[in-house]
Amino acid sequence: MLVEAVLDGGSGGGLEVGFGRDALPYGVFCVPGRFDEPRVGVAVDDAILDLGSLFDDPVFRQPSLNAFMAQGRASWASTRQHIKSALAGGAHERLIAAEHAVMQMPFEVADFVDFNSSLQHATNAGRILRPGTDPIRPNWWHLPVGYHGRSGTVVVSGTPVTRPHGQFVNAGAVVFAPTQRLDVEAEVGFVVGCGSTLGDPLTTAQFSDYVFGVVLVLDWSARDVQAFEYLPLGPFLGKSFATTMSAWVMPLEALDPARTVSPTQDPPTLEHLRVDGPWGFDVRLEMSLNGTVISAPHFDSMYWTAPQQLAHLTSNGARVRPGDLFASGTVSDEHESGSLLELTSDGAKPLQLADGSNRGYLDDGDDVLLRAVVHCFDGTRFRLGDARGVVAPARPVAGLDDAR
Amino acid sequence: MLVEAVLDGGSGGGLEVGFGRDALPYGVFCVPGRFDEPRVGVAVDDAILDLGSLFDDPVFRQPSLNAFMAQGRASWASTRQHIKSALAGGAHERLIAAEHAVMQMPFEVADFVDFNSSLQHATNAGRILRPGTDPIRPNWWHLPVGYHGRSGTVVVSGTPVTRPHGQFVNAGAVVFAPTQRLDVEAEVGFVVGCGSTLGDPLTTAQFSDYVFGVVLVLDWSARDVQAFEYLPLGPFLGKSFATTMSAWVMPLEALDPARTVSPTQDPPTLEHLRVDGPWGFDVRLEMSLNGTVISAPHFDSMYWTAPQQLAHLTSNGARVRPGDLFASGTVSDEHESGSLLELTSDGAKPLQLADGSNRGYLDDGDDVLLRAVVHCFDGTRFRLGDARGVVAPARPVAGLDDAR
Repeated sequence: MLVEAVLDGGSGGGLEVGFGRDALPYGVFCVPGRFDEPRVGVAVDDAILDLGSLFDDPVFRQPSLNAFMAQGRASWASTRQHIKSALAGGAHERLIAAEHAVMQMPFEVADFVDFNSSLQHATNAGRILRPGTDPIRPNWWHLPVGYHGRSGTVVVSGTPVTRPHGQFVNAGAVVFAPTQRLDVEAEVGFVVGCGSTLGDPLTTAQFSDYVFGVVLVLDWSARDVQAFEYLPLGPFLGKSFATTMSAWVMPLEALDPARTVSPTQDPPTLEHLRVDGPWGFDVRLEMSLNGTVISAPHFDSMYWTAPQQLAHLTSNGARVRPGDLFASGTVSDEHESGSLLELTSDGAKPLQLADGSNRGYLDDGDDVLLRAVVHCFDGTRFRLGDARGVVAPARPVAGLDDAR
Repeated sequence: MLVEAVLDGGSGGGLEVGFGRDALPYGVFCVPGRFDEPRVGVAVDDAILDLGSLFDDPVFRQPSLNAFMAQGRASWASTRQHIKSALAGGAHERLIAAEHAVMQMPFEVADFVDFNSSLQHATNAGRILRPGTDPIRPNWWHLPVGYHGRSGTVVVSGTPVTRPHGQFVNAGAVVFAPTQRLDVEAEVGFVVGCGSTLGDPLTTAQFSDYVFGVVLVLDWSARDVQAFEYLPLGPFLGKSFATTMSAWVMPLEALDPARTVSPTQDPPTLEHLRVDGPWGFDVRLEMSLNGTVISAPHFDSMYWTAPQQLAHLTSNGARVRPGDLFASGTVSDEHESGSLLELTSDGAKPLQLADGSNRGYLDDGDDVLLRAVVHCFDGTRFRLGDARGVVAPARPVAGLDDAR
C-alpha cells in the first residue's frame, strides 16, 4: 500500500503551519529503488530522519511502528530524547528530503473502534436521521457510544477510495449498486502502543502509559448502505470499505502542551469514567474538498475525552494490543460540522465549492484533505499528519447485473 | 493463553464421536517443559501428529496457523494429502498422546465478524426484545446482517470467562456493575486462509479458495449491557469481553461430504449473493451447561450460508486477510434454541439443570461446553473441536465504587 509522499499537505486551505523541529511525528517510509527496505523515521520540518540508521535497534528497521510502540512509555520518552539530542548534535546530515520518500502504513491496526463523541455531531445526525425524536439517546450521556470497525481496511493517506457497491433502497426497491451517498467524516484517532491484560480494565489515569500517539482519520461512509443495514447491529458495510489514516503518528507527549478543558459533563459520569485534569486538546481541524475548505471544527469541543474512551472500552475487561486504533467520531462544534451529512442536510442542501460546482455527497474524482494544527499554551503551533483520499469510480463487479 | 488439553471433550451430553483418522483438524500445541516451542499439529483420533517434525517447512514451527493458511488452497490440499500418506506409511510413531499436549490459540484473528443468520434465532430474539413489532426487520431478508466484533478478545477453548462489568439500568438508575444477565450463544465460525485484494469483492463461487476451515464459537453476551448500549451503533462492550473459539480448526475440505441443502430463500437474493449447489452443512451441535444438554440445534437450518456471508462482507470491496474469522450467529432451529435469551425468555422462565438448580442466565462457576458432530452423506461421522468456557466471578475493579 504505497502512496505518494504528501508531507507538504498538497492543495487546501490556509493552514501554513508545518511539523516544525520539535513535534517529531513517527512514520514508515521507503526511498525509491529500495521498496523492500521500509524504515521508521521522524519528520523534522520537511525532512525525514531515518531512525534505522540512527539507532542500532531492529524495531526501527521494520515496516511498522508496532514493535517500537510495544516497548512502552519509558522507551518512547528516551527515544524522543535521543532524537532531540542527535538533532542538536548535528544529525542533520542524516536527513532525507521528504519529497524523496514514499510513505507507507505507519502501523498494523489491531482492533479499530470508532466512537461518536461529539455532542454537536450526535445532535445534528439525530435530527436529520430521526426527525421528531430526541436526537440524543439516553445512553449517550452516560458512556462514549462506539462500535468496532474493520481494521483490515484502514488505509494510509493518499490511497484512492473506490466508491463501494452496496444494498440500499432506491425507488422502493432493494438494489445492489454503487453508493449514491458517499460521505466522509473528519476525525482524530488515538493509537495504542502498549498492550494490556485480558480481564484488567484500564483507568483514565493510565491513558498516557498506553496511548502512543495521534493520527488524523477520514471515516468514509456510504449513507444509503448504512441506512438500510444498520438495525439492529450497527454500521457494517456502509463503513468497512475504507478508513483513511495519516501516515504520520504524532507522539502523545508532543500534544501535552495543547491540553485544555473539554465541555462540562452533565450528568456527571460514573466514577470509572472520571478524569483528573483537562483532557481536551486544542487541535483545530480543516477539511477541504477539491481545495475549498468545507469545515474547520475545533477538537476541544468533544464531549467525551480520549482517556474516557479508553477506560470505557476496557471497562468490561477487554484488552488492548499494540496498534489498536480508536477514533473520536465526527468532530463537529457549535459552528462547524465535520461531515457532508450535516453540512448538506443529508444531501438536501448542497454545498457550493470554489469552482462553482455543488455537492450533496461526494462525486467521483473528489479530493478530500483533512489537516489540523495543534495550538500549545505557549503559542507554539505545529501540524498533525494529513489524511487525504481521492474518490475513484466504482469498479464493474463480475457477474453483478446491478453493477453495470 | 495456555489452557488444559480438552481434546477428549470433557463432561457433557451423549456425543461419543471422535475426530477419527480422516478428518485431520489443525491446531497449535505445546508439550509441557517446552512452552517456548509451539508447533502446528493435526489431531488423529486422540493423538496429535507434530507437523513441525514431519515437514521441513517453517510454517509448521510457528505459534499460529496464519502462515500456513496464507499459502492457499493448493497447499492446503497437498499438505492434507501428504499427511494422509504419512499416516498410511507408518507415521504413527510420531504421534503424541493428546493428554500430553497443551492447546493454544490456533491462529491470530485478523478481523472478526459475527452474523445473525438463523431465521429462528432472529425471530425468537425479535419477539423477546421488541414485542408487538415484526421480529424480522426488512433488511434481514435481503442480506446476512452482521457486525464487527473485537478480534483481540477471541480466546481459545478452556480460557476462563470473567464476568464483565458494564453500564446498565438497574432499578431505574444507570449503574456500573457486574452483568446480571450473562448469556452465551452457540455458533459456528469460518476461518479465512487466503487474503484478498482491497477493492475486489469475492463471489460465492470463490468461497472454497479463501476459506480454510471451521471452528466452534461461544459468543458470550452481557444482555443488560448490550440492551443499554446498542442503539444506534450496535453491540460493543456487551460482547467484546470474550469470544471462545475451539482449539482445533477443521479443514473445509473435510466437511465437503457433509454439504446439504439449506432453507429456501424467499424473496430470492440479489444476483451477487446467489450460490451454486447446496451450501448448508449437516453439522449437529450440542451445548451443555454443567453437564446438562440445554440445546442441540442443527446447523443446516441456517437461512444465510457461509459463501453468502463471505460474498456480502466483501461486496463493498473490503478485503479479507489470513486469520479473518466470521461466525454464523446463534444457531437455533425449529426445535432447539442456541442461547439462554431464547431458552429462558430473557431469564423469565428459568431452565432446570440435572442437579436440580435453575438458570435464567449464567452463574459464576458455570461450565459451558459446545460440541458438534459432522454427518457425512456416506454415513461417516466425526466431531469438530470443542469450545468450552467456565464463568469466573467478576473481579474487583480498582477505584470503582459500584464494583465493590
